[in-house]
Amino acid sequence: MHFASDNAAGIAPEILAAIARANEGYALAYGNDAWTQRVERKLAQMFEREVAVFLTATGTAANALALAHLTPPWGAVLCHDEAHIALDECGAPEFFGGGIKLVGLPGAGGKIASETLARALEGQWGGPHHVSPAVLSLSQATEAGTVYQPHEIAALAELAHARGVAVHVDGARLANALARMRASPAQTTWKVGVDALSLGATKGGAMAAEAVVLFDPAHAKGMPERRKRAGHLVSKHRYIAAQIEAYCDGDLWLKLARHANDMADRLAAGLVSGGLEPVWPVQANEVFVALPAPVDARLRSEGAAYHPWRTNALPPGVRVSPGASLVRLVTSFATRADDVDRFVATARAAS
Amino acid sequence: MHFASDNAAGIAPEILAAIARANEGYALAYGNDAWTQRVERKLAQMFEREVAVFLTATGTAANALALAHLTPPWGAVLCHDEAHIALDECGAPEFFGGGIKLVGLPGAGGKIASETLARALEGQWGGPHHVSPAVLSLSQATEAGTVYQPHEIAALAELAHARGVAVHVDGARLANALARMRASPAQTTWKVGVDALSLGATKGGAMAAEAVVLFDPAHAKGMPERRKRAGHLVSKHRYIAAQIEAYCDGDLWLKLARHANDMADRLAAGLVSGGLEPVWPVQANEVFVALPAPVDARLRSEGAAYHPWRTNALPPGVRVSPGASLVRLVTSFATRADDVDRFVATARAAS
Amino acid sequence: MHFASDNAAGIAPEILAAIARANEGYALAYGNDAWTQRVERKLAQMFEREVAVFLTATGTAANALALAHLTPPWGAVLCHDEAHIALDECGAPEFFGGGIKLVGLPGAGGKIASETLARALEGQWGGPHHVSPAVLSLSQATEAGTVYQPHEIAALAELAHARGVAVHVDGARLANALARMRASPAQTTWKVGVDALSLGATKGGAMAAEAVVLFDPAHAKGMPERRKRAGHLVSKHRYIAAQIEAYCDGDLWLKLARHANDMADRLAAGLVSGGLEPVWPVQANEVFVALPAPVDARLRSEGAAYHPWRTNALPPGVRVSPGASLVRLVTSFATRADDVDRFVATARAAS
Amino acid sequence: MHFASDNAAGIAPEILAAIARANEGYALAYGNDAWTQRVERKLAQMFEREVAVFLTATGTAANALALAHLTPPWGAVLCHDEAHIALDECGAPEFFGGGIKLVGLPGAGGKIASETLARALEGQWGGPHHVSPAVLSLSQATEAGTVYQPHEIAALAELAHARGVAVHVDGARLANALARMRASPAQTTWKVGVDALSLGATKGGAMAAEAVVLFDPAHAKGMPERRKRAGHLVSKHRYIAAQIEAYCDGDLWLKLARHANDMADRLAAGLVSGGLEPVWPVQANEVFVALPAPVDARLRSEGAAYHPWRTNALPPGVRVSPGASLVRLVTSFATRADDVDRFVATARAAS
Repeated sequence: MHFASDNAAGIAPEILAAIARANEGYALAYGNDAWTQRVERKLAQMFEREVAVFLTATGTAANALALAHLTPPWGAVLCHDEAHIALDECGAPEFFGGGIKLVGLPGAGGKIASETLARALEGQWGGPHHVSPAVLSLSQATEAGTVYQPHEIAALAELAHARGVAVHVDGARLANALARMRASPAQTTWKVGVDALSLGATKGGAMAAEAVVLFDPAHAKGMPERRKRAGHLVSKHRYIAAQIEAYCDGDLWLKLARHANDMADRLAAGLVSGGLEPVWPVQANEVFVALPAPVDARLRSEGAAYHPWRTNALPPGVRVSPGASLVRLVTSFATRADDVDRFVATARAAS
Repeated sequence: MHFASDNAAGIAPEILAAIARANEGYALAYGNDAWTQRVERKLAQMFEREVAVFLTATGTAANALALAHLTPPWGAVLCHDEAHIALDECGAPEFFGGGIKLVGLPGAGGKIASETLARALEGQWGGPHHVSPAVLSLSQATEAGTVYQPHEIAALAELAHARGVAVHVDGARLANALARMRASPAQTTWKVGVDALSLGATKGGAMAAEAVVLFDPAHAKGMPERRKRAGHLVSKHRYIAAQIEAYCDGDLWLKLARHANDMADRLAAGLVSGGLEPVWPVQANEVFVALPAPVDARLRSEGAAYHPWRTNALPPGVRVSPGASLVRLVTSFATRADDVDRFVATARAAS
Repeated sequence: MHFASDNAAGIAPEILAAIARANEGYALAYGNDAWTQRVERKLAQMFEREVAVFLTATGTAANALALAHLTPPWGAVLCHDEAHIALDECGAPEFFGGGIKLVGLPGAGGKIASETLARALEGQWGGPHHVSPAVLSLSQATEAGTVYQPHEIAALAELAHARGVAVHVDGARLANALARMRASPAQTTWKVGVDALSLGATKGGAMAAEAVVLFDPAHAKGMPERRKRAGHLVSKHRYIAAQIEAYCDGDLWLKLARHANDMADRLAAGLVSGGLEPVWPVQANEVFVALPAPVDARLRSEGAAYHPWRTNALPPGVRVSPGASLVRLVTSFATRADDVDRFVATARAAS
Repeated sequence: MHFASDNAAGIAPEILAAIARANEGYALAYGNDAWTQRVERKLAQMFEREVAVFLTATGTAANALALAHLTPPWGAVLCHDEAHIALDECGAPEFFGGGIKLVGLPGAGGKIASETLARALEGQWGGPHHVSPAVLSLSQATEAGTVYQPHEIAALAELAHARGVAVHVDGARLANALARMRASPAQTTWKVGVDALSLGATKGGAMAAEAVVLFDPAHAKGMPERRKRAGHLVSKHRYIAAQIEAYCDGDLWLKLARHANDMADRLAAGLVSGGLEPVWPVQANEVFVALPAPVDARLRSEGAAYHPWRTNALPPGVRVSPGASLVRLVTSFATRADDVDRFVATARAAS
């Protein structure tokens, strides 16, 4: 009953096999290899346009490199109050960006509303006393397990671009979002105004593989140096490329994500039927629910693993009752239905 | 006939097997797993003392994190003129260190002599107009394929410590150096004054696994945050730990290195017998030799892969004759004797 | 009728005279002069303890140097949502601090309440995913023209120190605050837990002179280098020292501040009698008031100079009525009573 | 007999008077004042073209801001081995530039020869393993008290521009250089390829006033923010502008510099006639000479002030004999002939 995080899961068998297959003979280091070339072509096809691709081993690196690329040091990154980049990366964007500022915006269910962004952009910026908004960063799926619809991204991007603000998507769980939507990778990114994407594979089933995707390859100048001097140009590069290649091949990423999402649905449905309603809609592979103390205690004693979650972004009117804890339950490609069912049964038994 | 670099080789089978073995069930991310705990204990045993260990995916990261940890932004890192950290990491130490300065020292065969260091330390430092020497960084084996003997490190470290300067070793090829010496890991590091080590495994046969080893665990404060905000805390951490564990297990690292060294010796011997004398002594897994143009052309046309090398650090009196090119030939755990022999035969045939 | 800012005023005659007096003969540069030594002794007397003093030409420099000194790059500076360091210095603390994070706390009248700080300190910090609170920075007087009483600072400092968080005061208008209180410089700083002070003189009447005062001189290591490499070690240092010396001599700073405060009181009283109530208590040299559009227009047309102000920190229940503008009126040592009276009369005539 | 540095002199009377004259009434802060507008026009006239001007209080700030503006963090600044920016600013360019690298080039008499630059530019750069040359920075006058002739700058700039490398001049002593040449400010800067200038006034007679001059105003984007977040936007800006205005008015700067140069000539001539030959030609306001120990001792005992100097850049064949010390003697606008004569007489008496 391991619902602590999708990065507690292992490597999807197809991806591990791809690593093993790549272990054949010599290959020039630092991306001058056939695997890297292939994965670049693959991503271009997947996104239906020429792209510039920079692989890294961690999502924090992908986010921080992308953000630093999109803003001068005196720029501000607008993001949700609870964005991973703002709260969970120990200041990586600030470090990579030479002291940029992250400006948090509120929003129900982890999402920034257009009006909120519009108001923020009207604030006191530039001049030169104030930093200037340079990037809007959206998490897809969000930290609250919700999903931005293409038209929502389009509306936000239009506001941003009108002010010269670039749009970045932290796609650590992009696959989970896409697997929920009837929309292609292109339709949820550059076609609705996304300029740069951190494409996650690790949480989706890779060992350690992420990519910065720049949708305008003409604006990639300096990124190779930026990545190298951050220590994020992996030398035996073929093994990262092989992971991403396998991840995308035959839409494996969507299949794995669909399984994770299904498990989250199953979990949510089970909890609801036991009277435990998720606080945010379950739109990806995460379920946030307030557990009464006895339920929490019983689950823990049965070995269930999960983390408590902060309550500041609860929807208006929703409260966690005293004694209960808001927790986050994350499913993954590796989650098994019987584990979900056991979790639900344990929770219901303790209610 | 691939002698371009040891990072053009693949993954040693034992290490790939360890990755596969680690792919079992769930494990908490970010180093809170059994593999990481085991590798920490393993390194403590190997170095015969308590150490603080921080795993990363690249050697540039390990070097830059270690250096930034050891110096304030106004500190200087003294290193060989041709050190990897100075020439080949695109300014990573400067970036991680908040604008530190690397001060190059000359030295025959890639090594810094004690007198050179002593003179440098007597220079104009601090005050507050000048930066202050904070770290001495040595490459082991050096970029010239030579090796610092323990007594040489001890002499340098004594000078450094007398001035409050910490000692760092870039051990990307530490295994190759150790495999040449009758000295233990401890005897070549902290017992002779090394404070911090970048322990390389990637060039030695891992996929992507390096470690910062701090020999005084009491002085590791801030390193967890530093690594995280640099994007170098790999989430599925067990797979990096498993690589290092396998690498060290049963002295695999020394066995792999010994093979690489043997291949370098065989290569050097073959070349010498053909009249091509290496310009620096072959003490690790690299052979530097000046190839006359026809030899170079023939080798290239036969598919041999290797890189030209800079000639600024040639020993006094040694010159590359016009028309010849100084080249670097690197062997690895994967180098095969028949490839070496074919290279030698081709070179001799073209002489 | 110039109420735009206290830095629109010129140099107080006593301070200009001191600059002229210092223009005699040679003096070693960079602080190795008699004026600097004298001002260091003077500040030690004024603060009733040994202090470490670092003079600079701007307040932004003093703040950013002090903050960078007190926190590692992964530290957070807790400050009021509307603090000058957070909003008006274009990211200087982030730049100097290597990418630190400023975390804004709400608070009525520009002040942080103890409960607010306590709650903030209980948040999710460190670990290493999150930054760690390292500094609490208070503005004295605040950006809302209010003043922290010594017992309020003491309560905040106690909370901070219990968590290992240092306390910094941005004292750009410290003189104005002190001139209101029956408390000595010591009683409002280190005796109530302040660790570092940006002591402003420019807004108070100097040409360009500020000081970082560290109350524990044993913890000043690295500050000389930090200041130098930020370009803030003024070479002809005697002229900055002479300004601060004259500013403090015979309590000139308090006399100048008292005049500015009196003018603010006179302004506020006049406005109140005309039905224009300041939105925050006037405790230093700033008056914040909502001007109805006709009043605003008339004042502008009569040549009054002042800036609009943001309304986000208004006290609960206080609103600026549509059509009115919240404005900030700043008095200084140079403000004349007849100018104040003319402003009041103009405002009243237009009401 | 004060020859320690030109920044040990005070403020030229004309400049002090200008500060006093500017102390009249209110003026908006941060450069929104009439003095700043006037000085911008003045510099445009002086340089015979539109320029972008950014005033600062220190030369280190001007240099570091200019360099950071001209290079990405992975750029290299090529400069003389003994350049002030490389040795005497405690890493300011590295800090401002986000970890840029300064690459020292050798050169007799403080000057970089064209062939040296050409060779350096042919080195191993970019790729992305290596930093890329981004700026050539020249000191005018040099640290050795010599002067680049316009045709020398032109030749260097041509090489630089051909490689996309910008040209910066550290003009802390530009006035002294210009006063020696029959060339206008334009003819020694942008007309021979200089892109950015740190224009010094402090050493020439101001209190604290320097300017970054960008010769292509279209490429000044971001500089206002860069200066502000470095704490180098002085609030009561009129006083810096007034200094520069007075400095340039009626060619005061050249008159002051001419005096300083004359005093250096007088000093050199006196020393030569006493058998003490300067080691580098005296082309500005500095004399470098090896003083035998007894001469040194006598001068010191008579109260002469000067600093020892490093000997690494001595011309080939020139050596400082054992027991002698190479020293730097700097004259200024304030140097008096009788002081020079007394110094010479004292030196000769002790020979």
